[in-house]
Amino acid sequence: MKPIKNRLTELLGVDYPIVQAPMGWIARAQLASAVSNAGGMGIIETSSGELDNIKVEIKKMRALTDKPFGVNIALAFVRDPSIIQFVIDQGVQFVSTSAGNPAKVVGPLKEAGLTVFHVVPSFQAAMKAIAAGVDGLIVEGNEGGGFKNPRGVASMVLLPMIAKKVNIPVIAAGGIIDGCSMAAAFALGAEGVQMGTRMVSSAESPVHQNWKDAIIGASDQDTMVLNQFSSPALRVLRTNRTNALEREAKVDFRAEFANVQDLYFGGDMEAAAALTGQVAGRIEEVKPVAQIIEETITEFYETINRLGMHS
Amino acid sequence: MKPIKNRLTELLGVDYPIVQAPMGWIARAQLASAVSNAGGMGIIETSSGELDNIKVEIKKMRALTDKPFGVNIALAFVRDPSIIQFVIDQGVQFVSTSAGNPAKVVGPLKEAGLTVFHVVPSFQAAMKAIAAGVDGLIVEGNEGGGFKNPRGVASMVLLPMIAKKVNIPVIAAGGIIDGCSMAAAFALGAEGVQMGTRMVSSAESPVHQNWKDAIIGASDQDTMVLNQFSSPALRVLRTNRTNALEREAKVDFRAEFANVQDLYFGGDMEAAAALTGQVAGRIEEVKPVAQIIEETITEFYETINRLGMHS
Repeated sequence: MKPIKNRLTELLGVDYPIVQAPMGWIARAQLASAVSNAGGMGIIETSSGELDNIKVEIKKMRALTDKPFGVNIALAFVRDPSIIQFVIDQGVQFVSTSAGNPAKVVGPLKEAGLTVFHVVPSFQAAMKAIAAGVDGLIVEGNEGGGFKNPRGVASMVLLPMIAKKVNIPVIAAGGIIDGCSMAAAFALGAEGVQMGTRMVSSAESPVHQNWKDAIIGASDQDTMVLNQFSSPALRVLRTNRTNALEREAKVDFRAEFANVQDLYFGGDMEAAAALTGQVAGRIEEVKPVAQIIEETITEFYETINRLGMHS
Repeated sequence: MKPIKNRLTELLGVDYPIVQAPMGWIARAQLASAVSNAGGMGIIETSSGELDNIKVEIKKMRALTDKPFGVNIALAFVRDPSIIQFVIDQGVQFVSTSAGNPAKVVGPLKEAGLTVFHVVPSFQAAMKAIAAGVDGLIVEGNEGGGFKNPRGVASMVLLPMIAKKVNIPVIAAGGIIDGCSMAAAFALGAEGVQMGTRMVSSAESPVHQNWKDAIIGASDQDTMVLNQFSSPALRVLRTNRTNALEREAKVDFRAEFANVQDLYFGGDMEAAAALTGQVAGRIEEVKPVAQIIEETITEFYETINRLGMHS
């Protein structure tokens, strides 16, 4: 399968510009190494806040893959800044920052030679991140799962709005599961894509089968945004628990996550809110990561060829 | 400029598969004829409910263009079914139906030789419309302005979800203002696009300059969804008036529209809710319709060629 050559794949040193999203507790060595080994960019999370465990996971990656991988620094959730130096010391070359202002960490990371992308949910946030000196942007459409800006914007609008105005590479997040959505993101100016829910529901994902089954069973209308009049908003799977919270002016999201591991790994779908994107409606099957990436790239090329018939 | 050849342009008899959205009060002969004359598909609205005026507008079209145009039948707002026969008698060849179940009107329209597309906001609605026998679908992503399903889905997810499962042509609505967004819609399986907010803010749009200026001044985060826990939900421009209604469990949308003409044509932006899509954040200039269409098609071909460099 022909590698994709662009600024992003050169910068990241990967064959395919497919980045795995940094889902808390889930984006650990088992999943991230599968993505890296398949030619994409596996990412280790920090949003769980479990920095000791995460350090072990980062070290494990060396044994599981000789391909590049990255670490997400979820600024609002990382209480111990020593993780930055740890990431540098471990020779990690790619960091995505999110959930906060990247200005403080961009300097040390770039001085150490790392590539730093920041996750942005709006045009204004993109401009701020560029002023902070990031190497690229992860532009997060509101269709994606997880923590969201309460005034979110869809990928179809946000991606070209940002990509047309910046000179650094853009990775599209939100709504991407396959080659046609990847080609759409590229049409809108992205040079790479990030997949969250698609990776949560992969064979190598460590989450309980009940959550994978819920994703496969979900319709297009089975996610919802909690806390949309407060912050952070959250795109979650529609369950009895989240339905009951839908109209709450302010959801205590920390309380909602107190038992998240009972859901993620215990399979109790009512124990917490399951962070899930609208693409749950499109996912019909659990697949190994390598198959997801291969099918995505194959369909990406097919889509480009189909569009080329108009030229 | 090379015409686009596909099932949709053949079916509609247009050079470019760009359909103007049927905005109430706005989508009348002045705007619709500009779109048709520029090679797209102009549409006359019925959602204003002003059927006598609309009949005059449909007749006017014959004087203003010799190109194809269509009429939208907004099922929930059309109280007098004689409009159907009027449309047939006037020789209109394309009807889009929306805001209701198309089953009752598809039969008579198709028997009279018209092409009928139905507007759908979900996968389930798409399946119902196909069962009713429509010729095509207008798939409406939640980023678009106006009446919305309270459980809306973004174009990036909804379009491929539907387009991959159906054999009839799909028109993408929601998030489209230019050639890169049109190419993205095509990557996702659409064969045409519909533009609403871009046409509201065109030179030929009859709305007050204040609304056009508000669209040009809007950021990506300056629209919002009202009535999202009830139905119909509405994507509107964020104003003092709409901000105050944001958390209302049930907005009396008929009351909100009582003075809509004071906003649309009088320029009082607080008189009613201004139905506006997220693309307001991307629109920077009032342009003539012919220029919008020409630039869209030019950029569509450029985008396809840019993507082709990966093949």
